[in-house]
Amino acid sequence: MNDNNIVDIFLNPKSVAVIGASKNMLKGGYRILSNLVLNNFNGKIFPVNPNATGKLYGLEFKKSVLDIEEEVDIAIFYVPNQLIPKLLEECVKKGIKGAIIETSGFEEVGEKGLELSDQILEITDTFSKIRIVGPNCMGLTRIDSDSNKENKSGFFTSFLVFNEYKRGNIAIISQSGMLNGGYFTHVVTKYPNLGFRYICSIGNKMDLSEIEFLDYFLNDTDINVIAMYLESFKDPRKFINLCKKAKSMPDKTIILVKGGLTSQGQSSSLSHTAALSENFKLTEGVIKQSGIIQARNFFELFEFARTFSMLYKSKKILPKRGYLAQVFGSGGAGTISADLTMQYGLKLPILGEKAYSALVELFPPWMPPNKFAFVDIWPAMEKAMTNSKNPRDVIRSVYNILLEEPEIEGIFNMLFCSKQFRAVNDVNNLIDIISTYPKPVFLYLVGEFEETRQISQQLGKNNIPSFSNLEDMVKNFQILIQESKNKSN
Amino acid sequence: MNDNNIVDIFLNPKSVAVIGASKNMLKGGYRILSNLVLNNFNGKIFPVNPNATGKLYGLEFKKSVLDIEEEVDIAIFYVPNQLIPKLLEECVKKGIKGAIIETSGFEEVGEKGLELSDQILEITDTFSKIRIVGPNCMGLTRIDSDSNKENKSGFFTSFLVFNEYKRGNIAIISQSGMLNGGYFTHVVTKYPNLGFRYICSIGNKMDLSEIEFLDYFLNDTDINVIAMYLESFKDPRKFINLCKKAKSMPDKTIILVKGGLTSQGQSSSLSHTAALSENFKLTEGVIKQSGIIQARNFFELFEFARTFSMLYKSKKILPKRGYLAQVFGSGGAGTISADLTMQYGLKLPILGEKAYSALVELFPPWMPPNKFAFVDIWPAMEKAMTNSKNPRDVIRSVYNILLEEPEIEGIFNMLFCSKQFRAVNDVNNLIDIISTYPKPVFLYLVGEFEETRQISQQLGKNNIPSFSNLEDMVKNFQILIQESKNKSN
Repeated sequence: MNDNNIVDIFLNPKSVAVIGASKNMLKGGYRILSNLVLNNFNGKIFPVNPNATGKLYGLEFKKSVLDIEEEVDIAIFYVPNQLIPKLLEECVKKGIKGAIIETSGFEEVGEKGLELSDQILEITDTFSKIRIVGPNCMGLTRIDSDSNKENKSGFFTSFLVFNEYKRGNIAIISQSGMLNGGYFTHVVTKYPNLGFRYICSIGNKMDLSEIEFLDYFLNDTDINVIAMYLESFKDPRKFINLCKKAKSMPDKTIILVKGGLTSQGQSSSLSHTAALSENFKLTEGVIKQSGIIQARNFFELFEFARTFSMLYKSKKILPKRGYLAQVFGSGGAGTISADLTMQYGLKLPILGEKAYSALVELFPPWMPPNKFAFVDIWPAMEKAMTNSKNPRDVIRSVYNILLEEPEIEGIFNMLFCSKQFRAVNDVNNLIDIISTYPKPVFLYLVGEFEETRQISQQLGKNNIPSFSNLEDMVKNFQILIQESKNKSN
Repeated sequence: MNDNNIVDIFLNPKSVAVIGASKNMLKGGYRILSNLVLNNFNGKIFPVNPNATGKLYGLEFKKSVLDIEEEVDIAIFYVPNQLIPKLLEECVKKGIKGAIIETSGFEEVGEKGLELSDQILEITDTFSKIRIVGPNCMGLTRIDSDSNKENKSGFFTSFLVFNEYKRGNIAIISQSGMLNGGYFTHVVTKYPNLGFRYICSIGNKMDLSEIEFLDYFLNDTDINVIAMYLESFKDPRKFINLCKKAKSMPDKTIILVKGGLTSQGQSSSLSHTAALSENFKLTEGVIKQSGIIQARNFFELFEFARTFSMLYKSKKILPKRGYLAQVFGSGGAGTISADLTMQYGLKLPILGEKAYSALVELFPPWMPPNKFAFVDIWPAMEKAMTNSKNPRDVIRSVYNILLEEPEIEGIFNMLFCSKQFRAVNDVNNLIDIISTYPKPVFLYLVGEFEETRQISQQLGKNNIPSFSNLEDMVKNFQILIQESKNKSN
């Protein structure tokens, strides 16, 4: 069986056994079973626990996988580590193709754990008899249909309860269970419009690793963005080659947070996933050769993933040179933004004659527009209002002028969010203009916190990224340039 | 009159005239008058407008300041720029001590504005007859009592409506009106427990500048944190000297965002406040000699201000060496945090024998604690629960052990926020322990977005900083070390 086939079985099994399933609501085995059932997994589920009897969710407990009459694709383990070898032997005997071992207490705890790992190697005949995801992970997730839909569905094997999710074009590969647990919950409640297709918590990656999953996602046309957290590279050479392959694909972006960049981080990762992190220079080399986007932390990882997810969904053109225009209503914020823009290698160019003349028409004579692409829009709005014209038309005109300018590849627009100013802002008007052009427009939202949240979500639904920190906005535009350079190399 | 006296009159006037006050709700002059009246300004208010008659809020309109019989301390201008010279002459004649000119259209718009500035210089006899704040600003704010109190009060002269505010130990000096407007609204709705005392929008700072206000706040014992946005230094020498004075004061911290660090930013600031930004090297020199904390953007400015505000209010000791402990429930987040900690010059030290032995007692034998100060608390929690002990006591013990360790100067604690886990987290228990010790503890919150918001506010009320981005947490601890170095130099 080739690796893509086995990954396909792990992510799309027809039947699963939950070893360690439990009626006790405090146990992880209960939550795994609940996640599968309540999220309408479209395959068969067999709860396995020698100490349990009767049924849960109408499913009968089996004492052992060997008592299951039908075929089983995948076994999910949530039992104490010492029990694994014997149970895994039974899985081999049963002909189960793969095991997701969520239990911890292997290489990462030292000598005793290493003995267990050796036993697993022997039982599986170095993974020739059965393939392994984990151990020490939080399982795999596949999202088929959004949680707020009546026919919500997917394959959920984390031992953390999943209530909210949306299907989308992002896949996650992670050595931190958090990304198929607490942090995932954070991301989906923070960005309710952000959609995911797969989340793969690969833990100690004793067998399957980032390599097989990455390869699979490169071949999956549903996936545009692959977001990764790694503490070590299983096979740097293969990793680089897969990333290089992604560079030649116009609709794939890979973003990586690498843990263990410092000696302190390495000590941590050793006790976490037993990862022997590469030294910083090697990591730097792998990332450079891979031509992928590096994020510094989980926050950045998901903000970057959101940006690319939206960009692909809205079919915007990747900016190449970093020439953009700023439309700001605050000179102070505009100045800081102009500074940051330059610090990140972006540029607010001098406007062409035609564009400048068109802007001059909109502005009062005592407050002409700047000659470079920094538009303080208020004087133009005031002029319109004084002449009883609709300020929306000014916004529309300014956007048209800037986005028609060939040199300009995108816009940063500051929006003051206040219930009082809803009519003036007219977010729908903005969304309408932005959707007309293939150039990316990013919004910087200030004002009442709840109003910024609401507008951010309204924009999010329309795949327009918004930020509450200027520097985040600039960084997220900068990575587009970086990615377009990756793609053209 | 010395400068502190005139600043005192500007910030605490007994009577003000609002020149340009209006009954038209769309005009800034209406909003300035409303802000004063509705926020219970404790002085006299005189609306002035030659075209208005009758009363507003029971206050009778005057045609000119010369029609006011009583003494007037401060005139607030919100009229077209061309009208200012004549009206300012009347103020001088009336013996008004200071004018806050919010109108724009002076040096920042070029030649015509420069003529106006020259006229003002002449009329005021270079500010010897009357002192000026502005022009091109959003006024001054003094907060006496919180907006949610029945006796809410203060002195509010911005032309943007102020509904929410809290009195506190922060003063703002800003060349961006945003900080006495839209961004201030953002900050107070984002951090509802963050309190401010004064906000000074100084605009083009034709007369009074950061110098006079900074000097005043250094002498005001209510103020611990001075947050500034400057596009230029009015008098670098004086600025450095005042900052050096602050270094010798144990309860003052100055944080600065400097706009115009790049040529692009300089072009922006020129059209904003007519600021001729210093070149980058000079700015760098001023900041270095000043020994103040530099922030890169508004987001950082207020996050840093919040951290110091809380630190002073809770009387925590500034860490000196950057030795801290991490208490994390996620190995992945812990690894990234350990990396960032090291990248920012902080250290997770090896634990002393006593502390380590005490931790070992709490952990199961198959999962002993790390020898360095990175505690993955889950195995200890699980052990407690298995033995029917309260997991709160484990958290308390871990904190006690770490905070009693002489070398450790603070803690980073990750908290998974979920309605399900409220009992386990027991935030009140945490607050109680953290308040017992003088060492700062920062929390990293992940989980359900709304739950993180709520816990963040609960912590905020108790002056415990929390973050949703690891790197922000690390940066905010790093500036404490920086400030303690500033203070000891």
